[in-house]
Amino acid sequence: MTHKPLEGVKILDMSRVLAGPYCTMMLSNLGAEIIKVETPKTGDDSRAYTPLIHGESIYFLSINRGKKSVVINMKSPEGRGIFESIVKQVDVLVENFRPGTMEKLGYGYETLKVMNPRLIYTAISGFGHTGPYAGRPAYDMIVQGMGGIMSITGEPGGNPVRVGTSIGDVVAGMFGAYGTLAALYARNDTGRGQSVDIAMLDCQVAILENAIAKTSVLGIAPGPLGLKHPSITPFEAYRTQNNWVIVAAGNDKLFAQFCQVTDNEQLITDPRFRTNSDRNRNMDELSAFFQQKIKQKTTEEWLKIFYKQQIPAGPINTIDKLFEDPQIAERHMILEVDQPHIGKIKISGNPVKLSDVPAEDENIKEHAPALGEHTIEILMQYAGYDEEEAVAYTVKYC
Amino acid sequence: MTHKPLEGVKILDMSRVLAGPYCTMMLSNLGAEIIKVETPKTGDDSRAYTPLIHGESIYFLSINRGKKSVVINMKSPEGRGIFESIVKQVDVLVENFRPGTMEKLGYGYETLKVMNPRLIYTAISGFGHTGPYAGRPAYDMIVQGMGGIMSITGEPGGNPVRVGTSIGDVVAGMFGAYGTLAALYARNDTGRGQSVDIAMLDCQVAILENAIAKTSVLGIAPGPLGLKHPSITPFEAYRTQNNWVIVAAGNDKLFAQFCQVTDNEQLITDPRFRTNSDRNRNMDELSAFFQQKIKQKTTEEWLKIFYKQQIPAGPINTIDKLFEDPQIAERHMILEVDQPHIGKIKISGNPVKLSDVPAEDENIKEHAPALGEHTIEILMQYAGYDEEEAVAYTVKYC
Repeated sequence: MTHKPLEGVKILDMSRVLAGPYCTMMLSNLGAEIIKVETPKTGDDSRAYTPLIHGESIYFLSINRGKKSVVINMKSPEGRGIFESIVKQVDVLVENFRPGTMEKLGYGYETLKVMNPRLIYTAISGFGHTGPYAGRPAYDMIVQGMGGIMSITGEPGGNPVRVGTSIGDVVAGMFGAYGTLAALYARNDTGRGQSVDIAMLDCQVAILENAIAKTSVLGIAPGPLGLKHPSITPFEAYRTQNNWVIVAAGNDKLFAQFCQVTDNEQLITDPRFRTNSDRNRNMDELSAFFQQKIKQKTTEEWLKIFYKQQIPAGPINTIDKLFEDPQIAERHMILEVDQPHIGKIKISGNPVKLSDVPAEDENIKEHAPALGEHTIEILMQYAGYDEEEAVAYTVKYC
Repeated sequence: MTHKPLEGVKILDMSRVLAGPYCTMMLSNLGAEIIKVETPKTGDDSRAYTPLIHGESIYFLSINRGKKSVVINMKSPEGRGIFESIVKQVDVLVENFRPGTMEKLGYGYETLKVMNPRLIYTAISGFGHTGPYAGRPAYDMIVQGMGGIMSITGEPGGNPVRVGTSIGDVVAGMFGAYGTLAALYARNDTGRGQSVDIAMLDCQVAILENAIAKTSVLGIAPGPLGLKHPSITPFEAYRTQNNWVIVAAGNDKLFAQFCQVTDNEQLITDPRFRTNSDRNRNMDELSAFFQQKIKQKTTEEWLKIFYKQQIPAGPINTIDKLFEDPQIAERHMILEVDQPHIGKIKISGNPVKLSDVPAEDENIKEHAPALGEHTIEILMQYAGYDEEEAVAYTVKYC
């Protein structure tokens, strides 16, 4: 039996750009209905982010598939009436404004929970709703810089480097979706909603895992390691004849096999490389032995050898290579969405594979909405408008 | 009233190293009880990862706080009896073995769901339980390489770079915790458990967001961008007199303010930089104007100026700087755990701030367990052992 976990759950999405929309995309993947509120005329800021194709932002399309767009002018009495009607009927509100913005509109959590005591109020912001930086604006790269991840990403001895995807936004969206689900689960017991306060900076700290503990114990901050692992050796990328190959031989047995297939048997009993601790200490010497052999064959030749021996290994793929990967295809991780005015575009799929949800249903394949595309539908369904009134409204605002 | 969402939820944790333990750490943060199964004598592989302090791995300690450790030899009849007793009484089983391992033990999901139809079975693996790569081993860096993120991380024109934290494991753990919660939520309706199949490679594809769509539309794979944002300008790091500063002036108004405070007023009306599209196209020229001014003051001086004008900006912190940050302290994002034999160590906190859970309760502050520390307790509570039998068992296996 097909059963999406969040079927019937209604989410009022006041968010824009990335962290909030990523959060509601995840909830949408589980079956929730997403009612995306957009400002008249311009909508979500990211509708203007390049590249634009036929006036549509690829950035926007990639994380707003299957959502419903309703245009509301939050400063007009009419818009406020519509907002209040909807907010009383939904389970969750998600926003990623700077803290204080919803209060200025008159709709802080303390007000909304009186209107709807079962409401879950998920706020994603740069620094959270408490603390000395609460009022500050933030974007992805700011929290990547402040949260430490940039200081450990890059070439050894080189400049700090931004993680190539907007990991500051994305993981905040992920923790936001997780916190929202937790509050929904708790509501089954308590009967009431609660607020979920997610800070992008907090999330950056949370994903550093052992780097925090290590720094606190060793007393020195780690720097960037390039293509090596901080505490497991050998676990790195090597240059091949034509490209790169990554090998992760993380225990003594794999290390011995790796030595064998690269004609480095003498290293197995070498006291410099006996244990993982030894190998960590003598990382550079060890690396040179492997590098010398590996540059003599192509990536494809090496992968065949490593896979045969079950040595964990892989190529470094550019994004276009993902479209050809049979595993990614089999797992439905690249979707094709038929987007009006543009045609088919590829976007990333839903990585949460639940046995109660068949593979053909696990992804939302509906297109991202045009600005205000569902305004008439939402006004009629949630705000008591008849068709004529709803059409008149859209003429005025959309 | 304090209410942790997962209070009363019992999780049998067969996982080791990082992705699985990160998943159960997140569930533990929400109040679930984690019963961590470890192999006799050695336990979780990561107990051997350096650096070791008084024989304890900092890596292990940082993500296993507050869990209970029970030693079970899964190949002995006695161990299998204990496992079966426990698995019938828990809500969730989490494992991150290579697919097929649990089946070889005789405990694949199809078997376990007969023993416990309400069981949620969360499996995190490199490539998932379906598809041509399902049987292959994987580690963090392998999926970082295969999943594309390394190809867009690094200096422009330079080598691909590994993200400095084990983002391949961490986001798989996050999606695993999210999927587990989704299945728990669904169980409230359906009355039955289900399996959650999380692949590290899938998760890497999922966090690429707009890079997938952009590549599919433009037909060319992006390369690394160093310290710049792929579609918003100015949004980058600049060298100051003493360090770096990041500025994210992502819309026209912020751009104008940024020009003003850096004595670059002439750029505001320059046709090369009028819109975000223009600025993206002429990124390097624009960058040079700002860089020239910004190198004349220190990071601290610039931050004071930017914060005053509410221009989003921040430093690039090394990990040790996080310990001094007042916002991170106020948000309880660095915990101190008193670890036996070692003393206080700092680890990262829980970024999910729920209004029903007071700040003093939101983090688990109990130490990480010694190998088998809770064996007697768990055997007595779940497997019908009396104290004498449980003690005899631990003498034999722990």
